Amino acid sequence: MAAPSPTEPAGWPLDDRGAAYGDGLFETLLVRAGRPLLWDEHLARLARGCHALGIPMPPEHDLAAPLAEAGPGLEVLKLTLTRGSGGRGYRPPAAPAPRLRWQLAAFVPDSGRWWNGVRVRLCRLRLGLQPALAGIKHLNRLENVLARSEWQDDAIAEGLLEDAEGRLVEATAMNLFWRRHGRLETPRLGRCGVAGTLREALMGCLSLHEVDAGLEALMEAEAVWLGNSVQGVWPVAHLEDVEGRGLAVWPVGAAHRAFQAEAHALLGYPCLP
Amino acid sequence: MAAPSPTEPAGWPLDDRGAAYGDGLFETLLVRAGRPLLWDEHLARLARGCHALGIPMPPEHDLAAPLAEAGPGLEVLKLTLTRGSGGRGYRPPAAPAPRLRWQLAAFVPDSGRWWNGVRVRLCRLRLGLQPALAGIKHLNRLENVLARSEWQDDAIAEGLLEDAEGRLVEATAMNLFWRRHGRLETPRLGRCGVAGTLREALMGCLSLHEVDAGLEALMEAEAVWLGNSVQGVWPVAHLEDVEGRGLAVWPVGAAHRAFQAEAHALLGYPCLP
Repeated sequence: MAAPSPTEPAGWPLDDRGAAYGDGLFETLLVRAGRPLLWDEHLARLARGCHALGIPMPPEHDLAAPLAEAGPGLEVLKLTLTRGSGGRGYRPPAAPAPRLRWQLAAFVPDSGRWWNGVRVRLCRLRLGLQPALAGIKHLNRLENVLARSEWQDDAIAEGLLEDAEGRLVEATAMNLFWRRHGRLETPRLGRCGVAGTLREALMGCLSLHEVDAGLEALMEAEAVWLGNSVQGVWPVAHLEDVEGRGLAVWPVGAAHRAFQAEAHALLGYPCLP
Repeated sequence: MAAPSPTEPAGWPLDDRGAAYGDGLFETLLVRAGRPLLWDEHLARLARGCHALGIPMPPEHDLAAPLAEAGPGLEVLKLTLTRGSGGRGYRPPAAPAPRLRWQLAAFVPDSGRWWNGVRVRLCRLRLGLQPALAGIKHLNRLENVLARSEWQDDAIAEGLLEDAEGRLVEATAMNLFWRRHGRLETPRLGRCGVAGTLREALMGCLSLHEVDAGLEALMEAEAVWLGNSVQGVWPVAHLEDVEGRGLAVWPVGAAHRAFQAEAHALLGYPCLP
């Protein structure tokens, strides 16, 4: 079920439900010298996704098998799990045989550029509300693709997404965090968005409050960050609106570094001065 | 770009964006003795989808190529077009090289059973609102898969979907039509749902009004139908709620048959007495 064998093509069969309907899940994780970071959090999110979609969760042994192929450096492992083939149209097969594929690639974080502060833009696209799919990392990611298509300027690191009702949710591929009146906050993700594993781990070791809040929360914030389990934490230095007009500037200081250090300790990334 | 050649595997490469993110579109069409039905409507919807997603529309010649493989009977052709490989994460490549795959299979409509009236159930899942993706037939179909998973009883032909705000939208794989006070109506699809090609063609030859309406519209209806370009038109005879309790019954009569005959004429299916 794990690695493509010589007798099995490395890709997806034409009738795979992942390719046909996005009927599956994925996890992208940091691997350091063969050791996966935040492994428990990744397994837990995949299990939540399997439960939500009704796909049998593979045994941990199968999910961990690709780690044997990892080299001595820093790599990113992408695991993709689909419901497999079968069923009739949208109707899933009664006894799905899930299909697991993986990709492992050497990785260098965008550290020098982004760990010291990023420019972020508000996206025009707003995320639709779908509680049945919220939080999990499923393969229906067209909203993220459309949002990431909104800018080409490489100086802009990420785009912030609001939901259809104007609440802050996340960035296109990262979670959002801020400190306001001394309190660490992150958007609640019960209606849309992906609950990142770094966010999950930070909630276990910091007093991080899930809130419903609009853009005004950022205007009141002393510090704002984006983070995920592969790139680590990027302090937000500049926020722009959908037209590229400046909305806010945050000088990167000690408050940024303290939160970043907590996150980077979980990923084996450095604390920055 | 069309059929898989002997040197190219028939499936999708691991890095295809369709398989990774559902970053693509599909069309499922009826083929009668090698002739595609509602071809112009399928091409037009695919072109709208390409425009919405920023995927180059393939030349008609490539899309029509699989028809040369069709046999003398009734078949269904599924065309799937993805943005291809490349890009960085969600970010699409600057110059995408779309990938087209097709599947052709013999087809027998569920005629005897469904053309004479079906049992339909209301789904628990409600469609999220996302105007950026509404109407087109993209590959992010987890909502349809989850909705279709709500019942296993083969006596229930389809499930009706409302949107997050309680408006009627469609069935899991068909469009919805009804006649109320003598007027033919169908849900407006600007916020979610798929604009079917049979619906499109019927709007060109009948006075069919797009409306925003909730379940109460069906309670006032003289006749209700489901339809798509492959199965034709199913009169709705019984409607049940999410618990399986009866909501309404419509004896299938002349009003049903008139609308069905219009649709079936477009697909080469019989008029029923």
